[in-house]
Amino acid sequence: MIDILINRIDELNNPTVVGLDPTLEMIPGHLKEAKFAEFGKTPQAVAEMFVEFNRQIMLAVQGIVPAVKPQVAFYERYGIHGLMAYERTCSLAKKMGFIVIGDIKRGDIGSTAAAYAAHIGGTDIEGEKYDLWHEDFITVNPYLGVDGIKPFVDACNANDKGIFVLVKTSNPSSSQLQDKLVDGVPVYLHVAALVDEWGRDAMGEKGYSRVCAVVGATHREQGAKVRQALPNTFFLVPGYGAQGGTAEDIRGFFDSNRRGCIVNSSRGIIAAYKKNEKYGEKDFADAARDAALAMQKDIMG
Amino acid sequence: MIDILINRIDELNNPTVVGLDPTLEMIPGHLKEAKFAEFGKTPQAVAEMFVEFNRQIMLAVQGIVPAVKPQVAFYERYGIHGLMAYERTCSLAKKMGFIVIGDIKRGDIGSTAAAYAAHIGGTDIEGEKYDLWHEDFITVNPYLGVDGIKPFVDACNANDKGIFVLVKTSNPSSSQLQDKLVDGVPVYLHVAALVDEWGRDAMGEKGYSRVCAVVGATHREQGAKVRQALPNTFFLVPGYGAQGGTAEDIRGFFDSNRRGCIVNSSRGIIAAYKKNEKYGEKDFADAARDAALAMQKDIMG
Repeated sequence: MIDILINRIDELNNPTVVGLDPTLEMIPGHLKEAKFAEFGKTPQAVAEMFVEFNRQIMLAVQGIVPAVKPQVAFYERYGIHGLMAYERTCSLAKKMGFIVIGDIKRGDIGSTAAAYAAHIGGTDIEGEKYDLWHEDFITVNPYLGVDGIKPFVDACNANDKGIFVLVKTSNPSSSQLQDKLVDGVPVYLHVAALVDEWGRDAMGEKGYSRVCAVVGATHREQGAKVRQALPNTFFLVPGYGAQGGTAEDIRGFFDSNRRGCIVNSSRGIIAAYKKNEKYGEKDFADAARDAALAMQKDIMG
Repeated sequence: MIDILINRIDELNNPTVVGLDPTLEMIPGHLKEAKFAEFGKTPQAVAEMFVEFNRQIMLAVQGIVPAVKPQVAFYERYGIHGLMAYERTCSLAKKMGFIVIGDIKRGDIGSTAAAYAAHIGGTDIEGEKYDLWHEDFITVNPYLGVDGIKPFVDACNANDKGIFVLVKTSNPSSSQLQDKLVDGVPVYLHVAALVDEWGRDAMGEKGYSRVCAVVGATHREQGAKVRQALPNTFFLVPGYGAQGGTAEDIRGFFDSNRRGCIVNSSRGIIAAYKKNEKYGEKDFADAARDAALAMQKDIMG
């Protein structure tokens, strides 16, 4: 799947991913009112809005961006109905030809991580096989060390899927733990070394491992250091746009062939209609398409 | 809720929690066959088995243990139906008088953590309030620092709920990251200091904060060090029993009044019937009850 992702980025000349992180506040009024009228002010109404909102966004950016990244928290907030919207979004994205990065940041002890690995490894019920989540990649948390990661790596290799391990996150307080110095080297570079180690037996055909890293666009110098340390590791780069990261900030995250990264924007794309008066509420999908094209130009420029 | 938990532990004289982490392998044959016959070899069948299995376990340990801790990964493995079983288990547990610790280990950047905080903070849909997950406490991951934790702390204070932050986990490879030395002090003690800081404005009435810590029973010396560093922090202690932790190992985790901890056992209780020939498959709930009583005696002895 890492090779498919790299191919698809090359085909579209676009190393970006749209974060499908809907909130009730960004749903256009006409869509909101229709679903509230049908289902009441219920989690089911919100779930229906989110699926329809995502569907129209995806139609608008199809053929422009290679991947989408739904953040499960924004769905989990609405309980079971919310998670049904997450699952439907992933399924629909696959059918529309997107690569799906499930931003779930799971991580636990070995036996529990093995259960979470169903996200990319599928579920076996006495010989019946199910792919219940429709994700190609997921994000995972390294705090528990290798036994919390190994089940995911095994699932990557068995099913040609991928994981993005949190190395240096985009948020301001990422420094509290990730920048602490261990033998003169920050924790995030120790995690990077672990990611390198975990990924060596999971190499794709194009020089990158199925075990990838999350490196925030908001940390220009640190990201460049992680690239130096990890020449064969593909990066998911959050933090561009709404969180403050720029194309200039992430130049050093790419390899010498300008490959090796996929850059995420969520609010900056899906809520773009709110930032520019030329769009009305009903133009939210067009605004997302324009914002996706502008982001491509900015990053490839 | 931290005060209610401490009271309930005192009333029952039992600082233990039963981990409701069902697997298909531990479901007794009669229950498995009945649900497969009704629903086929489907996630729905497994979900129905898990709820019935949990219900019978909870009936057996009601009045003995104060709390249950379902691990969401074991449900999430079975997709939406699995998560419906998780939600039904939490709801049923509340109705049966248990305190519910949702072992979800979520953690993300601030805006995303705020969405996850619905687990304990509830969900607001334009003025309509929902408690969709029925958890009293949840576990959270500290790798992203304070902005990933603050929304949970706010939800704790607004709703009198609690969180357990991963400090020193029970798994063998927890040492890879958590034991690395920063200024001569291991990472887990730096995290402990953050937990202390985050918890100071979330104190309950009984000397413990709503911001609690996860400290694995498998690390005797480290756990005692965390207790010394955090006199006002309540611990969730996994790793007793099946993972190798003993009552002797965790003596130093309690405070001088023998309070301050709740010790989890999952497989050791819910799959106890598989470890002793005196129980048949149909006795799984009785076996769980006996194992819970034996654990109480072991830890309080």
